[in-house]
Amino acid sequence: MNTTPARPTCVSTVRELREAVAGARQVGGTIGLVPTMGALHEGHVSLVRASKAECDFTVVTIFVNPTQFAPSEDLAAYPRALEADLDKLAQVGADLVFTPPESEVYGPAHSTWVEPGNVARSLEGASRPDHFRGVATVVLKLLNMARPDVAFFGQKDYQQVLVVRRMVADLDVPVTIRVCPTVREPDGLAMSSRNAYLSPDARRRAAVLWKSLSAAREMVQEGNRDAKAILARMREVLLSAEGLVIDYAVLVDPESLEPVARVDAQVLAAVAARLEGTRLIDNCMIDPPSSSSPQSPIPNP
Amino acid sequence: MNTTPARPTCVSTVRELREAVAGARQVGGTIGLVPTMGALHEGHVSLVRASKAECDFTVVTIFVNPTQFAPSEDLAAYPRALEADLDKLAQVGADLVFTPPESEVYGPAHSTWVEPGNVARSLEGASRPDHFRGVATVVLKLLNMARPDVAFFGQKDYQQVLVVRRMVADLDVPVTIRVCPTVREPDGLAMSSRNAYLSPDARRRAAVLWKSLSAAREMVQEGNRDAKAILARMREVLLSAEGLVIDYAVLVDPESLEPVARVDAQVLAAVAARLEGTRLIDNCMIDPPSSSSPQSPIPNP
Repeated sequence: MNTTPARPTCVSTVRELREAVAGARQVGGTIGLVPTMGALHEGHVSLVRASKAECDFTVVTIFVNPTQFAPSEDLAAYPRALEADLDKLAQVGADLVFTPPESEVYGPAHSTWVEPGNVARSLEGASRPDHFRGVATVVLKLLNMARPDVAFFGQKDYQQVLVVRRMVADLDVPVTIRVCPTVREPDGLAMSSRNAYLSPDARRRAAVLWKSLSAAREMVQEGNRDAKAILARMREVLLSAEGLVIDYAVLVDPESLEPVARVDAQVLAAVAARLEGTRLIDNCMIDPPSSSSPQSPIPNP
Repeated sequence: MNTTPARPTCVSTVRELREAVAGARQVGGTIGLVPTMGALHEGHVSLVRASKAECDFTVVTIFVNPTQFAPSEDLAAYPRALEADLDKLAQVGADLVFTPPESEVYGPAHSTWVEPGNVARSLEGASRPDHFRGVATVVLKLLNMARPDVAFFGQKDYQQVLVVRRMVADLDVPVTIRVCPTVREPDGLAMSSRNAYLSPDARRRAAVLWKSLSAAREMVQEGNRDAKAILARMREVLLSAEGLVIDYAVLVDPESLEPVARVDAQVLAAVAARLEGTRLIDNCMIDPPSSSSPQSPIPNP
């Protein structure tokens, strides 16, 4: 006997989305938004759970946003799994799923962009020019389409969260941004839709991303403060995976993303690397043992 | 006996603005927004009247937005007349006036910008680099602060209206943009806060802007279609004013702002010129007599 719960309502136009949200609002409910590019995994599901815990009505958007991919990137190959996604969203109890076609999001005359500032220039921004312009623009559009009270993002895309938070503050968008912890596989690999690209062998080797972050955290816990030494160890761990190409491995200030020379306060350790051509990222906060601040994800205000 | 009506409530923080607007919304009212830089004239007043005719609660913002001025421009000298402005807004019956200090609008870490596209590049955009980036950013901020149902702009700033309309469509901002006709002095000069800079003599000469547009319209009405001949006449009229320096005098497509060679459909005639260092602009729509389209301002959807 099939006990799959009923699938959530699925709409594909902004008009239908707004009508459904207005209906939920009319009965006094608060609206939570979980923007995704589909190919949902436990990380996404944790965001939906967080929204359901805080809001009365949870909207999940599934849109593979072309403007955040460079021409050389994996837009065409990006995993699409709508049927499986809808089953997962039924299980977790999402209220509404918005799956717009590209033409519903970007009109033919689209020419206005949200340009993030300095926080978008390093790390992912350096490796992926225009990526955060596309992210900021589509996130603002989705916020304007659904007008949620709260929107949920994963800490795995740490720099994206900084860009979105900065945008929401700078443009006075009336929404609360919540950040949920990275969900990991048993071997520590951060859940990502792109993990599906990896061969079984590369999938095993990919655990070095988390291992390198854990090694950094351990060194700091043992009293090491020297960024150079910690970064050398991180790179060593990463390069222990055959065929892995490091994009970056850094220790940076969690707000400015500027590199630090010493770990005297909370830092962000972040890595990006390619395996079999698949680009993987991960990060974690590291606190020096003397610091009284907890090992938290990006704090929610 | 002083019969000046009571002044509207005046707030200077986003929080107060949002509370006042929420109060008006709670009793079922629609919200109209009239964004201004103060130094109000009959053009602004006509926008407030239009808002009062359409909406239940009219918010006027007075903010001289620094980010739309170039370093070389007249930010410091821009006319400020808050007391007189509040009297005018009392007379016309505005419900709420928002007069934020700069620090309430731009935080110290502000770094996210709304970048308009092609429509912002020619004419004013060519003469005033970054001007429309500042306009688009502050208008989006004000829309997000007040969340009006309708926002009102004057046709005098025609290109600004195109930029704002494009932004609202591209970023899915749920607001209706209304455009009101340019209000003119008896000699045809478009009302502008910057007219106050002119000496009495330059003020008289400034009427050539409207005269040049009227001359263009007349030529078209008389059957002339050749943009080159019409532009020559427009320049001739403009240069009849002693000391006037033309910035541009153009006949362009009303949507793309691309120059036209012949007036075979509705065109926008637009001029910008300096008199005594003061930059003045004006524009009008011109329809060829065979065309059945009315001589309208930017049509409201």
